[in-house]
Amino acid sequence: MEFPKRRRARELGLNIGFHTPGANNSITDVRGVRVGHATINFGEGALVPGQGPARTGVTVILPHDGDLWNERLSAASFVLNGNGTATGLDWMAESGLLEGPVFLTNTLSVGAVYDAAITWMLHSIPEIGVTADTYLPVIAECDDSALNDSRGGHVKAEHVFAAISSARSGPIEEGAVGAGTGMTSYNYKGGIGTSSRIVMSEAGDFTVGVLVNCNHGKRNQLLIDGVPVGRSLMEDMSTLHREGSICIVVATDAPLSPLGLNRLAKRAALGLARTGALANNGSGDFIIAFSTTRKVDRRDSSAILVLPELSPTFINPLFEACAESVEEAVINTLFMAQTTIGRDGNVSYELPIDKTLALLKQYGR
Amino acid sequence: MEFPKRRRARELGLNIGFHTPGANNSITDVRGVRVGHATINFGEGALVPGQGPARTGVTVILPHDGDLWNERLSAASFVLNGNGTATGLDWMAESGLLEGPVFLTNTLSVGAVYDAAITWMLHSIPEIGVTADTYLPVIAECDDSALNDSRGGHVKAEHVFAAISSARSGPIEEGAVGAGTGMTSYNYKGGIGTSSRIVMSEAGDFTVGVLVNCNHGKRNQLLIDGVPVGRSLMEDMSTLHREGSICIVVATDAPLSPLGLNRLAKRAALGLARTGALANNGSGDFIIAFSTTRKVDRRDSSAILVLPELSPTFINPLFEACAESVEEAVINTLFMAQTTIGRDGNVSYELPIDKTLALLKQYGR
Amino acid sequence: MEFPKRRRARELGLNIGFHTPGANNSITDVRGVRVGHATINFGEGALVPGQGPARTGVTVILPHDGDLWNERLSAASFVLNGNGTATGLDWMAESGLLEGPVFLTNTLSVGAVYDAAITWMLHSIPEIGVTADTYLPVIAECDDSALNDSRGGHVKAEHVFAAISSARSGPIEEGAVGAGTGMTSYNYKGGIGTSSRIVMSEAGDFTVGVLVNCNHGKRNQLLIDGVPVGRSLMEDMSTLHREGSICIVVATDAPLSPLGLNRLAKRAALGLARTGALANNGSGDFIIAFSTTRKVDRRDSSAILVLPELSPTFINPLFEACAESVEEAVINTLFMAQTTIGRDGNVSYELPIDKTLALLKQYGR
Amino acid sequence: MEFPKRRRARELGLNIGFHTPGANNSITDVRGVRVGHATINFGEGALVPGQGPARTGVTVILPHDGDLWNERLSAASFVLNGNGTATGLDWMAESGLLEGPVFLTNTLSVGAVYDAAITWMLHSIPEIGVTADTYLPVIAECDDSALNDSRGGHVKAEHVFAAISSARSGPIEEGAVGAGTGMTSYNYKGGIGTSSRIVMSEAGDFTVGVLVNCNHGKRNQLLIDGVPVGRSLMEDMSTLHREGSICIVVATDAPLSPLGLNRLAKRAALGLARTGALANNGSGDFIIAFSTTRKVDRRDSSAILVLPELSPTFINPLFEACAESVEEAVINTLFMAQTTIGRDGNVSYELPIDKTLALLKQYGR
Repeated sequence: MEFPKRRRARELGLNIGFHTPGANNSITDVRGVRVGHATINFGEGALVPGQGPARTGVTVILPHDGDLWNERLSAASFVLNGNGTATGLDWMAESGLLEGPVFLTNTLSVGAVYDAAITWMLHSIPEIGVTADTYLPVIAECDDSALNDSRGGHVKAEHVFAAISSARSGPIEEGAVGAGTGMTSYNYKGGIGTSSRIVMSEAGDFTVGVLVNCNHGKRNQLLIDGVPVGRSLMEDMSTLHREGSICIVVATDAPLSPLGLNRLAKRAALGLARTGALANNGSGDFIIAFSTTRKVDRRDSSAILVLPELSPTFINPLFEACAESVEEAVINTLFMAQTTIGRDGNVSYELPIDKTLALLKQYGR
Repeated sequence: MEFPKRRRARELGLNIGFHTPGANNSITDVRGVRVGHATINFGEGALVPGQGPARTGVTVILPHDGDLWNERLSAASFVLNGNGTATGLDWMAESGLLEGPVFLTNTLSVGAVYDAAITWMLHSIPEIGVTADTYLPVIAECDDSALNDSRGGHVKAEHVFAAISSARSGPIEEGAVGAGTGMTSYNYKGGIGTSSRIVMSEAGDFTVGVLVNCNHGKRNQLLIDGVPVGRSLMEDMSTLHREGSICIVVATDAPLSPLGLNRLAKRAALGLARTGALANNGSGDFIIAFSTTRKVDRRDSSAILVLPELSPTFINPLFEACAESVEEAVINTLFMAQTTIGRDGNVSYELPIDKTLALLKQYGR
Repeated sequence: MEFPKRRRARELGLNIGFHTPGANNSITDVRGVRVGHATINFGEGALVPGQGPARTGVTVILPHDGDLWNERLSAASFVLNGNGTATGLDWMAESGLLEGPVFLTNTLSVGAVYDAAITWMLHSIPEIGVTADTYLPVIAECDDSALNDSRGGHVKAEHVFAAISSARSGPIEEGAVGAGTGMTSYNYKGGIGTSSRIVMSEAGDFTVGVLVNCNHGKRNQLLIDGVPVGRSLMEDMSTLHREGSICIVVATDAPLSPLGLNRLAKRAALGLARTGALANNGSGDFIIAFSTTRKVDRRDSSAILVLPELSPTFINPLFEACAESVEEAVINTLFMAQTTIGRDGNVSYELPIDKTLALLKQYGR
Repeated sequence: MEFPKRRRARELGLNIGFHTPGANNSITDVRGVRVGHATINFGEGALVPGQGPARTGVTVILPHDGDLWNERLSAASFVLNGNGTATGLDWMAESGLLEGPVFLTNTLSVGAVYDAAITWMLHSIPEIGVTADTYLPVIAECDDSALNDSRGGHVKAEHVFAAISSARSGPIEEGAVGAGTGMTSYNYKGGIGTSSRIVMSEAGDFTVGVLVNCNHGKRNQLLIDGVPVGRSLMEDMSTLHREGSICIVVATDAPLSPLGLNRLAKRAALGLARTGALANNGSGDFIIAFSTTRKVDRRDSSAILVLPELSPTFINPLFEACAESVEEAVINTLFMAQTTIGRDGNVSYELPIDKTLALLKQYGR
């Protein structure tokens, strides 16, 4: 796996927030969480729907390394702005559970990914549709049609399977990869970013990890560690602007109930705000949060479940950790994504690192 | 089109509620609303996933007969119990708009219908994915796997297109048809039902029409016009019980805002309750409501829209009309649906009309 | 304590639903729950604001017989129609907790009750406002101004204290008493009603108890056990109609989480619907539910709480029990409340029992 | 009226955001909006509940200068964290309307203010409680008990009336005044702040104005214009920390529907986040937004209302304006509030301006 040449914000000296990142500063620092990408990137020049150019893909988050169907995790979501879709959230709200992967892809490929997710789960669990409960996949999307032949439907079941197969813990590829291949954020090249924080408390040490797929924001709104970088760097604007979205996935090993996870998801929105995001009218800002240590096993036939739950008295550091992780994950996206030329020669330029660092220095960072 | 031999509740003398039905006692009494079914019904005997037997389909509601993409309608939803999915509702909540058909199908075919809906809309609107906004289909599901080879994925794009092509106003086929082909309700054969009411007020005459896909309820819960029919008729239980769902679509020509439509959708739940439904734990009870006379045209570039809105002072009769229509639509489903033998010889028996009428008579109806 | 002469529905042979009531068919069948009333009833004739006639009061539900402030219960609410107010619900939603009594009173006395509730709690807990958390009372209201001099502000702190002092388990006074003194429901005399159910399951035996304050509904909407009684009994209409509200309090000893209690509260709305209620435009329909066996002690400084939670697989009987209890509690209100003449000679007539029973008989009950 | 000696952020050279403030950089820049304070400030030394010291008050926002009861405004709210209360929000959500003032006060005085608000409204509208609809006041609170004898109940009806009488347009007193007298924010003296923005668009020029009552945040979280000021200034911490709340009132003359105002209220949360706020566990973060130009007159008996509504296409600048205004209003609070010594000698220190400006300069501001 060859990672892009660019470097992450923290490697370049930017320390966002005041909590400590995990070992890989990644959502995979939450034990058991794995991430996989399938990147679809071919063709150049004029758009010929169905033929390309394709700049798209699939990213999958496997929330733990056990039996996803049976070992269900507490989960919740928060929709900051609903100009988009994330399937499966009503069931998540009613049950408080996540019982499969979280998939990210482009807007017009949600159906394809949905179908592939079902194929994959049916293959794993032969009882579904016969004697068992049915499966409702969780899929969130952003619109990459400024760069991608999104009408062409280039995401196929094979890409979904490939993303799942490639999922692993450890460092994650960021930027123009997987579902982020064709995304644009703050009129810069966007896509996938990640970050994490470890909070130490009387309640124990907990990890909060975040993965984002950034397709949101307007250039002049961009703040990096509080510095209005966007307003100072108004050149190299994308030739085609589309008001995009952001998908945020938050993982934690703190035993949060669905109510606690909904609260955590709201703090992801607050961290997002620190990058200047305002959940623009055309943006679909969906946040999904889950806890890897609060499990409800489908095979447990007990009438009375006994579940752990972090006392709210101890939740503030997790709120801070979540907000900081989201802020840094968004910035990591911009630092890592490379200039991408898409359909019809549309260009999404990468954040100019040297100018950015100069600005940050000028602002005392 | 050959309709089933059974007769609707009102034809058999049952008058639910006190408002007057529209001409066809159907959702299509709301001018412009059209309904189409594609029924998939083949094979017998043991389940062989992929080969059948298939007892499933697609039902589509076209909310008006104009340009669905551009002439967007005010819309809202209410989720009574979220053990299921309906795609596109977050965008509906954020925008207050419906900008395409409402599709009904089985749980495992949501992806296939999603993909087909996009194919269909992309074909109609070449700008989507290039210069225009993107499309988020509205699809609600119930699980028909007690009768249907739902693992087999028998719903194909062609069925979605066929359902759309067949959509028409006037009388609607009810019972085991379209998305209702394999559904079971109160342990009787369920499926599609419809009803409508006309309310006359100082504000004008308004129509409320409802279409349901019934897959919900346990036998002993069933009330027909307030009579506990279910508890008296406990024979002929389905050989395989699955706790199902109900999708409810409410149309009106009253100019209701999204807030007003959300309120109307809640009253659909109250009408449903009168049939004994309790939104059982495993049920996905999704309600979608739209107004055909409160349109927001995508091509209207005005900064200040001027929209009509029924004064809440006049809304009570619509609440009554909606609840009555839902109650009668559910009962119509049971009256119209015919015994269906599905996969593995599973039988979903039809409501025994003679016994039911005798019971109703005994209870003074 | 002298109870009204009228008899409850079940004593007169009406058996609503199919689950078994508790010993007193009352919310107090849930162990530890106590109810107290303070009734304010003086004056006759023309309204002289400030002087009367007064037909109002306070009803209080003490959710358990321990330390309410420290032994907090899981709780949740559902607002079916928000034309009214219930204080403290946002905090209940955020914390999932109830940490004091639930008060019911008239609309314009919410401030007085709020103040008195604080006075009472501050007296009990000297640390509040100094070193401890602060207190947010839960108070729900209905508007009794058709009978009561509600402008007069006749509810004083002493009535709140008296209601608390009088709270007890066992049988509850129903009808025109406490907060129900001046209420009107379905254009009949309304007020307080209660009912309960016991459900036996593999998970154990659980009790669900309900208390309602009925001020809602129009005569022609009224259903009693599914029979359209209201439409047959259109005489003796209140001389002054006001579209009222209903407050519903649901107690259970099943260990439900806040999410489970929110689901239960929604089923209270479904039970209400079976009495013909449609949550009319002008109605404030507030439902509050709590579990007496899922406690979170304020003094527990554990970082990780370990809380019991009924598996959703076992929740359906509770849903049924809740809906049946609400239905019967509303009917009990009408059966028990006696004709009341209020301000300006406004009369709220009691449900005519003989005619009602005759109608029910005619309809096979 | 003698205003504090301190100066607002913008006067000291801090320009937050990129939109232009209104004439007074105040919520009163929205035509018709008036603000009044009643400040209660007496006593020193040890807390003697009932005797003081008192550091509290009432602030009232009159949303327009017409007939508040009859000329109702479109309104909506958003609760970021519900550890607090704001009365009347359920009715606001159901009706989409604000029909009276917005009151701010301390937590334990909500009952007193509620009662006084009713007294005041009943005096203005003799029909309430007789022939007219009833009144549900909107009151939001923060807990000032770290400085104030909040048990003492020092807020009386007279203070509510005084606040209303003193309401005016033009410049607003900020800091330790009115409801803000005893508040603490980021462990600095908090209280009242305001700011506004004017956005010019094809849709016309619109004003967004904000008023906050700040009692939230921990010192180390504080960001001023993106600079982590709090972490650099950790001396002079309040001797008593209490995790507080924030009330945010947003006014605009853009004709936003309730749905649009709910969206705007969410952006207030995003602006708040830029000051470092994370809606800590113990914080009640309530946001109320209204439009002065979308009125629904109670006396209008039309069946079909025709209401203006800003097209969502034009809403982004309002989102930006709202977020910037909230950010600046919070910072104005800190810049304007003066050191306050409260009960038991508890001190809430003011933000040290010189050090802050030095830090900001160091960070390139």
